[in-house]
Amino acid sequence: MQATFDVIQGGVTAAKGFAAAGAHVGLRRKRKDLALLVSQEPCHFAAVFTTSTAKGAPILWNQEVVERGGKVQAVVVNSANANSCTGYPGFLHARQMAETTASCLGLAAHDVLVASTGIIGMPLPIEQVKAGIKQTAPLLGISLENGSNAAEAITTTDSFIKQMAVQFEIGGSVVTMGAMAKGSGMVHPNMATMLSFITTDLAIAPALLRKALKESVDSTYNMISVDGDTSTNDMVVILSNGLARNETICQEGAEYELFVAVLNHINTTLAKYIASDGEGATKLIEVTVHGAETVEAARKLARHVVASNLVKTAFFAQDPNWGRIIAAMGSSCVPFNPETLDVTMGGGGAEVGLLLDGTPFWLDEDECMSVLKSDEIAVEIDLNMGDCSATSWGCDLGYEYIRKNGNYRATYKAEFAAAKEGAA
Amino acid sequence: MQATFDVIQGGVTAAKGFAAAGAHVGLRRKRKDLALLVSQEPCHFAAVFTTSTAKGAPILWNQEVVERGGKVQAVVVNSANANSCTGYPGFLHARQMAETTASCLGLAAHDVLVASTGIIGMPLPIEQVKAGIKQTAPLLGISLENGSNAAEAITTTDSFIKQMAVQFEIGGSVVTMGAMAKGSGMVHPNMATMLSFITTDLAIAPALLRKALKESVDSTYNMISVDGDTSTNDMVVILSNGLARNETICQEGAEYELFVAVLNHINTTLAKYIASDGEGATKLIEVTVHGAETVEAARKLARHVVASNLVKTAFFAQDPNWGRIIAAMGSSCVPFNPETLDVTMGGGGAEVGLLLDGTPFWLDEDECMSVLKSDEIAVEIDLNMGDCSATSWGCDLGYEYIRKNGNYRATYKAEFAAAKEGAA
Repeated sequence: MQATFDVIQGGVTAAKGFAAAGAHVGLRRKRKDLALLVSQEPCHFAAVFTTSTAKGAPILWNQEVVERGGKVQAVVVNSANANSCTGYPGFLHARQMAETTASCLGLAAHDVLVASTGIIGMPLPIEQVKAGIKQTAPLLGISLENGSNAAEAITTTDSFIKQMAVQFEIGGSVVTMGAMAKGSGMVHPNMATMLSFITTDLAIAPALLRKALKESVDSTYNMISVDGDTSTNDMVVILSNGLARNETICQEGAEYELFVAVLNHINTTLAKYIASDGEGATKLIEVTVHGAETVEAARKLARHVVASNLVKTAFFAQDPNWGRIIAAMGSSCVPFNPETLDVTMGGGGAEVGLLLDGTPFWLDEDECMSVLKSDEIAVEIDLNMGDCSATSWGCDLGYEYIRKNGNYRATYKAEFAAAKEGAA
Repeated sequence: MQATFDVIQGGVTAAKGFAAAGAHVGLRRKRKDLALLVSQEPCHFAAVFTTSTAKGAPILWNQEVVERGGKVQAVVVNSANANSCTGYPGFLHARQMAETTASCLGLAAHDVLVASTGIIGMPLPIEQVKAGIKQTAPLLGISLENGSNAAEAITTTDSFIKQMAVQFEIGGSVVTMGAMAKGSGMVHPNMATMLSFITTDLAIAPALLRKALKESVDSTYNMISVDGDTSTNDMVVILSNGLARNETICQEGAEYELFVAVLNHINTTLAKYIASDGEGATKLIEVTVHGAETVEAARKLARHVVASNLVKTAFFAQDPNWGRIIAAMGSSCVPFNPETLDVTMGGGGAEVGLLLDGTPFWLDEDECMSVLKSDEIAVEIDLNMGDCSATSWGCDLGYEYIRKNGNYRATYKAEFAAAKEGAA
C-alpha cells in the first residue's frame, strides 16, 4: 500500500504533549550526557529489549515496568556508562534513576523507563547521575532544540545525531510521530547498542502498539549489523499519549496499516542512519535478497552478507569481490542454488551486474568503480526460488573501526578522569 | 586418559607409504601452487566438508567419491584459485584434476580427492593445472622436504607452513601419523578456508576412522574463528593405509582411545597454528569455558567470544575490556548467570583475575599489560553451573586484517596477470 505522510522537522518533541531535554551533567568531558523525555499525559507504550543473556541493569528495571502493566510517562537516559555487568548495585542504580526522575516530575518511579549506554562493567556514578537528572529536569521543553539536545545526549561514538518526525492524517485528525536513536559500535540484529525512542500523539490500543512495534523492529533495527555483536542494553520504545484526539485505533484496518507504514518508515530511516554511522564506516551497504521461499530465509541471507567481515572489507577496499557475497550466503546454511543467482550492485546512480543465472559478468573496472566509490551501495540478490524478500543494512569495515574500538576504553577512561576532576 | 606418543619431525610423508610433492606450476607468480599426496596402498579414508550451501566444485567431486564408497589413494590440491562459484564447468575441471592425477599415477579418477583454495568466482585455468599436475607427479617422494613442499604449495595468505607428525605404539607396532594444513582468511567454525590432510599407516576399520575424525573436528577445527566467515571449500581428510601392520582396530577400547588422543593432539595443534596465523593476526586468543551444563553450551559461548570483533579489537589494542567478553557471551543467547562468573586471563607466564562471582577485580595496569603483551592469551571463564567445558581459538583483529583483505583480490589479480604473462 502507498502510505501518505509528510516528513517534518524535529524529533521526539514533534508530537503533541512531549517535552524533552538534554544536558551535560559531567559524566563525559564536554558532550551532553543526560536526556529526559516526558509526556504531559500518561502513555500507552511498547518496548523491545535486547535478546542478550547479559542484560544491562536498565533493561531489568524496564522489564519490571512492563510486567507491572499500565502506562508510563517519562524516559531518562544517560550516556558514557552502560550500567551493565554491574550486578545488583547496578539494578538499584537504575531504579534510583527512575525514582529521581519521578520525584522531579511528580510521577511514580514505575512511570519512568530507564536507558544507559556507554562502557560496560564500570559502576554507574549514581550521585552524579541523580544530580544530573535534577539539573536537567528544569530544562524540559517542547522546542525543536529540546528534541535535538536529547538526541545529542543519548549518543556515544555516533558521528551525527539521529532523529526525525512525520505527520499524517487519521480520520480527520493530524497525527505526529517523532523519534530519536543512537547506534554506532556493537550494532547487530537482536537489538545492539542501539537505543530508539519513538513518540506519537496517536490514540491506539496498546495491543496493536505492541504488535506493530515488534513487527517493525524485526524488519528494521534487527536487520542492521555493524560488527556482529549484540549489546547488553538495546531497546526500542514507542510512547503514545493520544493527544491527536483521533478515534482510538482498536482493530487492524486501513488506519492501522497507515500507522504501521509510518512507523516502518521512521524505523527504516533511523536503522539506515545507524548502519551508515557504524564505527569507522565510510559507506552504507544495503543488501536485498529477493526470490526467497520464506521471509526468514531472505532475512538470514541478507544479514549474513552485511555481517561478513570479508564482504565489509571488500567494500571498504572498493573491490567488487562477489565471491565473498556468495561465500557469506553459503555460510548462513540457508539452502539456495548458486546456479540460479542474479546479483547486481548499484550506487552513485550506476548499476553493475555481477552474476546472471549464476554466471559471472565480465566486469568493467570503470563501471565498478563508479558504484564502489559511492557512499551508499545497494546489493540486489535474486535467488529465483520464491516470492519473499528482505533488506538488511550494514557498513564497510576499515582502519577507523580498529582505531576507534581499540581506543574506546582508553578514551572513555580519559573522559571519566577529566569529568571526575571537573567535578572535584 | 594420558596418551603416550612422540612428536617427530615431518608432515604428510612421515607415515609409511606416503609420498608427496609440491611445486610452482604458474598459477601464482613465484610461490608453490600445486601439491600431490599419494599412498603406495589404497587407503581407508574419512572426510569432513564445509557446511556452506555454496560448496566449491572440488567438494562436490569429493562428495561423489565418498558416496561411491571404497578406498582412495591420492589427493591433488591447487592454491591461488578456489574453483568455487564456477558452475558446472568448475565441476568438470575438478573431475579433470582427479583424472589427470589418476592417469599420472596409474589410478582411477575416483581414487583421487581434489582440493582447491584461493579466489572464489574465477574460472580455474584448467589447462595450466593439468600441465602442472603432470609436471609435479615426477617430483613425488617420501623425504621430509617432499612433505614440506606439499605443505607450502597448499598455503595462500598463510605466513608459515603448518605440518606435524607423531609416533605411537599400538599392540607392539610403531604407528605414525602426519598432517599438513592451511588456514588464514575466512576461517570460522564449520570448516572455513581451511584444508587439513592427515596421513597414517595405522590399520583401522573405516567406521571408526569416520567416527574419530568427526568428533575430533568438532572440538578442534570447528572451534577456531578468524573472521566469522565459513568458506566454500573447507575439508579435513584422513587417509590410513594400514602399513604399520598393527592388528586392525575394529572396536572402541584402549587402542582406539590412543588413536583418538593422537588425532586430537594433531588437530588441536594445527587448529591453533591456523588461528594464530589468521590474516593480520598478532596474537593467538584461547578461550575456555568451564562449568557449563552441556558441551554444546560451552562451545557456543567460547566460539562467540573468540569470534567477537569487539573482543578481538580489544586484544589487538591490549585493552583488558572484559565487558566485551560478557557482552559477546550474552549475544550467544546461551543462558548463564552474570552474577556467578569467574573470568581470568593469562599469558606470558602471568595471570590476572578479571571477575570473581561476577564482581570485577581492581585491575593493575602493569599486571594486565604483562598478559596483554603476550602473543598467546588464554581467557578462562567459569560459569559455575555444571561440569562441561570447551575451548575455542581465534586471533586479534588489527589494521593488517583490513590491509590484507582489502588488497586480497588486487594482489591475486596481479599474481594471475604475472603468472599468465610468464606462461605466454
